[in-house]
Amino acid sequence: MIYINAIGYLAAFCTTISFLPQAIKTIRTRDTSGISLLMYAIFTLGTLFWLIYGLLGNQWPVAAANAVTFVLALTILFYKIRYK
Amino acid sequence: MIYINAIGYLAAFCTTISFLPQAIKTIRTRDTSGISLLMYAIFTLGTLFWLIYGLLGNQWPVAAANAVTFVLALTILFYKIRYK
Repeated sequence: MIYINAIGYLAAFCTTISFLPQAIKTIRTRDTSGISLLMYAIFTLGTLFWLIYGLLGNQWPVAAANAVTFVLALTILFYKIRYK
Repeated sequence: MIYINAIGYLAAFCTTISFLPQAIKTIRTRDTSGISLLMYAIFTLGTLFWLIYGLLGNQWPVAAANAVTFVLALTILFYKIRYK
């Protein structure tokens, strides 16, 4: 049971932190040509729903992880719209 | 409680399906210049961990959603490596 939770934390860490190198790359290069606007529009909305779900359901790990991902995804979405 | 679950399902739907327009765009255009290799390497690994977590913990919605996201993310990662 403990090792299943460990896999869950590892999974949450990976899928959350993965958006950091993308955000850094996008901010630095402003190259958003290969990035899908529709993906980031839907994904950012999705992380906002996860954040609300985590807050309303008192699931703090879900809320915390998605607060981070929401900010990173919103940044990438902003650059995609700004430097289309 | 029911509406909290509804927000959760909506969140899962959005963050899962969002990778479909990105995968379609990447397959069609082969333009991966703005896409971060590091993001997709870490993210694909993360969805694999979520899939394993869902299967081991009998959390079928987690397993199903991440099986879909894993395939989509792996496709984008493949194109990023192939058409760098």
